[in-house]
Amino acid sequence: MSAGQLKIATTAHLELINITGEIDRIVAGQAISSGIVHLFNPHTTAGLTINDGADPDVRRDILHGLTHMVPGNLNFHHAEGNSPAHIMAMLAGCSLTIFIDNGRLQLGTWQKIFFCEFDGPRSRSIRWKIVADNQ
Amino acid sequence: MSAGQLKIATTAHLELINITGEIDRIVAGQAISSGIVHLFNPHTTAGLTINDGADPDVRRDILHGLTHMVPGNLNFHHAEGNSPAHIMAMLAGCSLTIFIDNGRLQLGTWQKIFFCEFDGPRSRSIRWKIVADNQ
Amino acid sequence: MSAGQLKIATTAHLELINITGEIDRIVAGQAISSGIVHLFNPHTTAGLTINDGADPDVRRDILHGLTHMVPGNLNFHHAEGNSPAHIMAMLAGCSLTIFIDNGRLQLGTWQKIFFCEFDGPRSRSIRWKIVADNQ
Repeated sequence: MSAGQLKIATTAHLELINITGEIDRIVAGQAISSGIVHLFNPHTTAGLTINDGADPDVRRDILHGLTHMVPGNLNFHHAEGNSPAHIMAMLAGCSLTIFIDNGRLQLGTWQKIFFCEFDGPRSRSIRWKIVADNQ
Repeated sequence: MSAGQLKIATTAHLELINITGEIDRIVAGQAISSGIVHLFNPHTTAGLTINDGADPDVRRDILHGLTHMVPGNLNFHHAEGNSPAHIMAMLAGCSLTIFIDNGRLQLGTWQKIFFCEFDGPRSRSIRWKIVADNQ
Repeated sequence: MSAGQLKIATTAHLELINITGEIDRIVAGQAISSGIVHLFNPHTTAGLTINDGADPDVRRDILHGLTHMVPGNLNFHHAEGNSPAHIMAMLAGCSLTIFIDNGRLQLGTWQKIFFCEFDGPRSRSIRWKIVADNQ
């Protein structure tokens, strides 16, 4: 088992940031062949998701769709004014569980891992834990 | 490894119930330093989520947003009339994976764990499993 | 630990396919009493979810609700035209973590596991990993 943290500086209010390279490097740096990497986002206005990384328009369309689903002009009470970000955080989810085989992250052909900023820009971090399979 | 169940009595039709204290006590009662707690909700009209616990208005706004996203007056076919609850259950998700370090639950500063009641009031329960890290 | 893949042929554009029987057989075929089964969907226009399996109208209503939430006529940019499927994939989530006790999958009374096709029909597959509890 090993664990750590990855710092992420977001630059926009709404943003999907591809962190696959960083996670892949962390996994490749472990001396394990097979296991699981768990990612956990400790923020309440951000999330983690896996989606298409080939066309940046998919990321743009996901944020466009979320903004349509959770419009800012609903009758929200939370005084900070970022209730849509809290709702989007629920929709995205705050953790990911990804398999490791042959020492590498096992994603689908088009899949990339994204940190979801819903109330940026901010200094963020996510936590990871890698668990080797018991044989 | 240890496992168990937590009973939850909900009191409203739509409700986010903070169960962080209960989960924290379960984790603190284990003789493990580092690991993972898995939570699983066995109901199809409820869910589990992590979000802000400081301002009750965030919980109110999340339920307000979900009710906007999944209005009750769509052309639903399910005869029990609780299709919005089944959809909200999908949106929230039915499990959570949270890290344990130094014998304690590792949540972000503002994060609390919520049981999401979408079709209450009812007698509910969730299941937990704590897995110590293999060293 | 054991791992594998399950092939799924979808037959409609939007479809929730009950794969509980297949996962249950995989779990029952392992020589473990207690543990966790992790399921991972490697596609970016599909997902995995757990919901009611008793009334097919629930599945129909979930897809109806998702189509209401993510209408196809938003101003999407992604040229493939399947942005709603990418958004629904995010909403459903791409992995599931389910407990195993007494050698069997532990689902709630009404719960079944569904592969969510959001851009079919296609040939799909999901990956599974079963981890026995360390005692």
